[in-house]
Amino acid sequence: MAKPEKHVFVCTQSRPLGHPRPSCGQKNCTEVAEEFFWHLQEKQLFEKVQITTTGCLGPCSEGPSVLVYPEGVMYGGVQKEDVVTIFDEHLQNDKPVARLQMSKEFWG
Amino acid sequence: MAKPEKHVFVCTQSRPLGHPRPSCGQKNCTEVAEEFFWHLQEKQLFEKVQITTTGCLGPCSEGPSVLVYPEGVMYGGVQKEDVVTIFDEHLQNDKPVARLQMSKEFWG
Repeated sequence: MAKPEKHVFVCTQSRPLGHPRPSCGQKNCTEVAEEFFWHLQEKQLFEKVQITTTGCLGPCSEGPSVLVYPEGVMYGGVQKEDVVTIFDEHLQNDKPVARLQMSKEFWG
Repeated sequence: MAKPEKHVFVCTQSRPLGHPRPSCGQKNCTEVAEEFFWHLQEKQLFEKVQITTTGCLGPCSEGPSVLVYPEGVMYGGVQKEDVVTIFDEHLQNDKPVARLQMSKEFWG
């Protein structure tokens, strides 16, 4: 197994209904994670990109949260439609997607 | 929330009894994750270190797997007793623990 050039961590934390803290699980993070896995398969990037689901990444109010290492770029409010852009611009061309990056207040 | 200097990902993937693929869940990974959280609290390193549990990190046969970014150092066979060493040597003094690192066959 190769150490990936880009390792994508997708928060899939859920919390019970009525919990005072929001969660990525309330905001379609599962759909976002599935879209990452789907594009990984479709683009056959297994040697370069790894996708891993996670527990809480921290900035719950700003989710769905997606974190890319080794750069440590955190994306917030990621929707299914944004995933292809993250692949095309960041994961394949090394240009993080500025409009999706979380503000420094939450990750900086 | 500060971007951490060291971000530790601890696999907590479980699989059903009898599943053909091993899992970190069969090898006390939950105890390992709890030990990371405990030392984080005890050492009050919240500004520097972040701990996140994950789904499968890949090299299931070599678990419990623990991955540290931004370096991308993967540890295998991590036991509860190893966690303080990873904190003292790697997370606080930037010297990865050679004896715990996974071989290049599994992460390289």
